[in-house]
Amino acid sequence: MIDNPNSFHLIQTCPGSQARAGELITPHGLVPTPVFLPVGSQGAIKTLTPEEVKDIGLVMVLANTYHLYLRPGIAVIEAMGGLHKFMGWDGPILTDSGGYQIFSLASLRQVSDEGVTFRSHIDGSQHLLTPELIIQFQEALGADIIMALDECPAHDDSLEKVQTAMTRTHQWAERCQKAQKRSDQALYAIVQGGTFPQLRCQSAEFLASLEFSGYAIGGLSLGEPKEVTLAMTEETVALLPENKPRYLMGIGSPEDIVEGIAQGIDMFDSALPTRIARNGALFTGQGRYNIRNSAYSQMEQPIDPDCDCYTCRTFSAAYLHHLFSCQELLGYRLATIHNLRFINNLMHRIRDAILNGAFDAFKKGFLAGYRTTDEDVRLNQKQKWLRSRNLSQ
Amino acid sequence: MIDNPNSFHLIQTCPGSQARAGELITPHGLVPTPVFLPVGSQGAIKTLTPEEVKDIGLVMVLANTYHLYLRPGIAVIEAMGGLHKFMGWDGPILTDSGGYQIFSLASLRQVSDEGVTFRSHIDGSQHLLTPELIIQFQEALGADIIMALDECPAHDDSLEKVQTAMTRTHQWAERCQKAQKRSDQALYAIVQGGTFPQLRCQSAEFLASLEFSGYAIGGLSLGEPKEVTLAMTEETVALLPENKPRYLMGIGSPEDIVEGIAQGIDMFDSALPTRIARNGALFTGQGRYNIRNSAYSQMEQPIDPDCDCYTCRTFSAAYLHHLFSCQELLGYRLATIHNLRFINNLMHRIRDAILNGAFDAFKKGFLAGYRTTDEDVRLNQKQKWLRSRNLSQ
Repeated sequence: MIDNPNSFHLIQTCPGSQARAGELITPHGLVPTPVFLPVGSQGAIKTLTPEEVKDIGLVMVLANTYHLYLRPGIAVIEAMGGLHKFMGWDGPILTDSGGYQIFSLASLRQVSDEGVTFRSHIDGSQHLLTPELIIQFQEALGADIIMALDECPAHDDSLEKVQTAMTRTHQWAERCQKAQKRSDQALYAIVQGGTFPQLRCQSAEFLASLEFSGYAIGGLSLGEPKEVTLAMTEETVALLPENKPRYLMGIGSPEDIVEGIAQGIDMFDSALPTRIARNGALFTGQGRYNIRNSAYSQMEQPIDPDCDCYTCRTFSAAYLHHLFSCQELLGYRLATIHNLRFINNLMHRIRDAILNGAFDAFKKGFLAGYRTTDEDVRLNQKQKWLRSRNLSQ
Repeated sequence: MIDNPNSFHLIQTCPGSQARAGELITPHGLVPTPVFLPVGSQGAIKTLTPEEVKDIGLVMVLANTYHLYLRPGIAVIEAMGGLHKFMGWDGPILTDSGGYQIFSLASLRQVSDEGVTFRSHIDGSQHLLTPELIIQFQEALGADIIMALDECPAHDDSLEKVQTAMTRTHQWAERCQKAQKRSDQALYAIVQGGTFPQLRCQSAEFLASLEFSGYAIGGLSLGEPKEVTLAMTEETVALLPENKPRYLMGIGSPEDIVEGIAQGIDMFDSALPTRIARNGALFTGQGRYNIRNSAYSQMEQPIDPDCDCYTCRTFSAAYLHHLFSCQELLGYRLATIHNLRFINNLMHRIRDAILNGAFDAFKKGFLAGYRTTDEDVRLNQKQKWLRSRNLSQ
């Protein structure tokens, strides 16, 4: 094993639950867990400056190797002194390998044991990425935590396809480990296996045996019902080493974070809070509300009177509604600040609850009060997924 | 005359020039002149929070009665406690009457002596605005400085049309003055007269006789050559009272501001610095540069090493170039901050030069070093205008 300044300390597992509090030590600072990472795929948290991200209380951000490789190019960022300096963020960074993004390209990519060939979604140019190159790129970018290249199957792929992708993910994880040269970055593996419990277990066991610095759970929340996401998370977590951080990729709604933490997850990332903010959907303790709704056009209170974010401290819901009506860019920004602060406050409350041995009560209270506005969408999605598997409810 | 807390103090006119330094006293604070007002038509300076606008050093902002009347509606802002509270800006505000915006609607509006009937550019609904209503609306909004309703002809309208518009503007100015009820707002008249020197003089003399709190010069920079804009400004200023502020509407490029101040102008507003920022055009002491240009893709220096704005203090030109390549909203914001800080610093340097009796030397030095990138556009525009008047160079 490489001698590495990164480490994870498990502080406490909440009695009667899998929920845990800990801390990540990284070369750019300490990260209390559970933690949510806002997504800055292109090297920027959409609409926000690094100072604002810090003011919100967020301590670690995610950027994407695939996006930065295509634009501005890894060599440019290296020449500018690395990703931290380039984006003006001196806190910890995690770079995703881009596996998920490349596999989302569907017809634009071809996968072989060597690696994945794809056409850029920007200019159609052809590229080959291998596990070795992905590590080389992430070492050049210089993030604190880097991710192995994985193959991410679709949520409705057959057992055979998912098994092939899993086996390849395992081979690539080993190659990534061998390719690693820098001793100051933590390399995490990504568990795959789709929605097949036996494959999830096989993947978790195999990767756990390789002693990575941390373990991500990939390939979930891609269209399968929420119950399946949770079941797969539970199966996987049970087989991951207790003393290593567990990272549930692409999950970021308040209710999913709470459920994920109950399963023993330490890290989350998702573009959801920032993406839906730009569509006007705002988190509150009572659930998601859409500021575009005309009900807000004359509301003098902030959108969430319980919130301490800059937006809620400064502006009425009516003003925010007005900015969205006019498509003023400031509106997208104010909504982004609110949603990220909501998530960050939620993480703090959860961590306190875990440390006080009261997570289970916190979870029940939170979920009882919180309503998502897309229950119908969820039910439709579930029926569609069950049909794709020739199952019925 | 209404007893009014607003006033203007002329501090110094620069020897050998018309350039002057002064200060506006308003209910929301003191405004050193010459001053540039950033445009927040809809009650927001695009992409920026009020705190950022203040950090840039800007002391007074402009909002637009026409835009706010249509959305969110005057009654909403009044119910929210007025425009200052609604937009979270506790400094001075000037509201434009919207005359220019309404007349830009062309076929969507019909003008009579009573007022102007127009169809909303948003939903096509029909509205009648009169001088009395415009004052009533601006009193409800509560800005520090409010503007009379004017009729703004096109730059290539005939003498007869321009004369009719001017006469109506004069009648409307008198009606606005009579309609004013609040005693804590300064009402400015708007000089019209197109590009006809005799009409400009007639308009300036007539309105000067009515003793408004300030005088705006409207209807310029609408397509006429720059020389004509300057000549009309000179004609008009000569006939305006020395002890009243003079406001050149819709002018905001660095070179035009410098020329305007040389003619004796105290106030400017323009969406240009913020609009071109969102297109990637950035001011520097050497002229305008476009950050989209690939020359910036690997530049480690800031776009303007002489600039002290947040953007230049924090990020490389390469990062800003990258944000524009990816259409990241943060890029539009960082460019906006830079351009407004450039203009604000320019205003400070000009005021110091005036107070030190050195404006003329400052002007020569500035214009010698400053290049606009659109000289060809200017020459084409000039030829087109001359043809429209059946003139040749």
